[in-house]
Amino acid sequence: MPKQIRVPVEEARALCEEAYRRRGVPAVDAVRAVDQFILCDLFGIHTHGTRRLGNYIGRIECGGINPAPDIRIVSRMPAAAVVHGDGGLGTVVAARAIEDGIVRAKANGIAYVGCIDSNHFGANASYGWTAAQAGLICLSGSNGTPTIPPTGGKSSVVGNNPIGYAAPRADGPPFLFDVALSVGSRGKMRRAKDLGEPIPDGWAIDADGFPTTDAGKALDGFLLAIGGHKGYGLALGTEILSALLSGGAFGPEINHQFKQPDQPSRVSHYFLLIDPEATIGRAAFEDRMRAYCDWIKSSPPADPAHPVRVPGEGSAANHVRNSAEGLPMDEAEYARLRGLADGTLKGEVPEA
Amino acid sequence: MPKQIRVPVEEARALCEEAYRRRGVPAVDAVRAVDQFILCDLFGIHTHGTRRLGNYIGRIECGGINPAPDIRIVSRMPAAAVVHGDGGLGTVVAARAIEDGIVRAKANGIAYVGCIDSNHFGANASYGWTAAQAGLICLSGSNGTPTIPPTGGKSSVVGNNPIGYAAPRADGPPFLFDVALSVGSRGKMRRAKDLGEPIPDGWAIDADGFPTTDAGKALDGFLLAIGGHKGYGLALGTEILSALLSGGAFGPEINHQFKQPDQPSRVSHYFLLIDPEATIGRAAFEDRMRAYCDWIKSSPPADPAHPVRVPGEGSAANHVRNSAEGLPMDEAEYARLRGLADGTLKGEVPEA
Repeated sequence: MPKQIRVPVEEARALCEEAYRRRGVPAVDAVRAVDQFILCDLFGIHTHGTRRLGNYIGRIECGGINPAPDIRIVSRMPAAAVVHGDGGLGTVVAARAIEDGIVRAKANGIAYVGCIDSNHFGANASYGWTAAQAGLICLSGSNGTPTIPPTGGKSSVVGNNPIGYAAPRADGPPFLFDVALSVGSRGKMRRAKDLGEPIPDGWAIDADGFPTTDAGKALDGFLLAIGGHKGYGLALGTEILSALLSGGAFGPEINHQFKQPDQPSRVSHYFLLIDPEATIGRAAFEDRMRAYCDWIKSSPPADPAHPVRVPGEGSAANHVRNSAEGLPMDEAEYARLRGLADGTLKGEVPEA
Repeated sequence: MPKQIRVPVEEARALCEEAYRRRGVPAVDAVRAVDQFILCDLFGIHTHGTRRLGNYIGRIECGGINPAPDIRIVSRMPAAAVVHGDGGLGTVVAARAIEDGIVRAKANGIAYVGCIDSNHFGANASYGWTAAQAGLICLSGSNGTPTIPPTGGKSSVVGNNPIGYAAPRADGPPFLFDVALSVGSRGKMRRAKDLGEPIPDGWAIDADGFPTTDAGKALDGFLLAIGGHKGYGLALGTEILSALLSGGAFGPEINHQFKQPDQPSRVSHYFLLIDPEATIGRAAFEDRMRAYCDWIKSSPPADPAHPVRVPGEGSAANHVRNSAEGLPMDEAEYARLRGLADGTLKGEVPEA
């Protein structure tokens, strides 16, 4: 096992920014893109942190991601906008959306911003955190490649579209919640297949529609949504809010980021932002949130050593520790980051 | 088994309105409240239709629901409002909210309306349908009595809060989706207990936190959320948008509609309404929805006799049939409706 180290945040940030700039990403967009990586690593969501740099760069190198997109923000009414991503980094397109949406929500009390012609945007959590730091409640989501069949159907029609909720708290870190709508994930299935291990019952059905715990058959079949038709419908709702409402792509119009790495993914995202000032005022909202979090935490823990936490508190504890001690990675990952930054290494495209 | 009959919609409507007016509900609010019943019955959601009249009236008779509330709509910014329900019928409070929200969304492109101090509001579907008929996308939800424990906790902290999505379609009935965030429901558990039948695995844990298929033990224990921590977090997010953001009650502040029928439930609801005119224009949105629905319906059906449908199409087919043929009920239900209308019968409060 490679040696585990801690890389200072500013060093990791500088390496990632250099790697992006070297591939033609404008300096200001490199800052935006790396902000999302760093936040995810600080939260401990390493699957969406700096570890993903090589993949995004691999897609820039083969032409799938536009490093210097002409991003246009089109607004027909003050409280709404659509960000046309021009095939840019999803983390840049979404960052532009959240910057724009925060201003619109502050001015109007509420705002919707959709993003189209984008690519993988990382995790809802980083955008939700940013909105909550600005005092706003944020509901967000993204669509993706179809992986889930409709109720009663035998082909994938909708992605396991992630949903995020974020809300500011006065006496604690933001409420932060971010999940995909499938029971399991293709990433975990790939790891199980590599290790020759089965996957849990209830994660997937095979290509013929039968339940399977064989990771290989599951990868050739379909993901199951949480709660069956319930998760399926939530995934459709998320796609309507992200792609349909902003004129973006869905289903067969989306290119698979791993199977078609040299094509723009054309995924869509959305952010719904609400300022408590528009409803009951910030102070009153903070009072309610304080009482609510106390209520949640008053639940007796199943394991006395692990008191119940409010969603986001785990990420925030990681944030404090990783900010102070540096981002955890192993030496091979650190070497890879340096190689991507100085141009001696190329990006990669992982197996689909 | 009692004889099944069809009651003309206008007759059912008149009987329900008379029953409400007889208990002091103003005529205009009786129309609002009955609109929701009738829509649910037309959709085939009979658990939330006229069959519920006796329960709502039982709660008016024992003082739990205020028949003539002083409903106030408080707005600090044009695109948002909070409806103070004064303990009125949830169907009246929510109807006021959707009426108000539609106007705000038309004017601003987007609107949030929260409702507090309300009671059981029926189903998201009826409000979503109303919004979609007005050309708006609607995301809605409600909180309720805690039934779901937090991740790692041993007491209920949050309800199996229902979430609804609705969207207009030019060539078909509205996209309509409405689910509670638990795998099963307490209503189905009560029926299983009455029949001496087990409940499916994965629906509930007993009071000690162990999985159970015993309906009685499940009723004394906790509902499980869809996807475990995923459904739990979605329930919290729904409660933040409904209760916290509008200054409403949660958890221990909510009175159980069946266990404390003579107390106001104090539940909260929310409606987020978006006009596609604010993003890409109605015509462009309708084109996208048309292509999306065609895509969903192109999925090969598992059973060739049952082609895949878009959520809402089943309800809409019921709506057409029930509008023409009358609302299906049995003779005992019809007699009960007439008795509630002419005052010879009192309302009831079902078992918790």
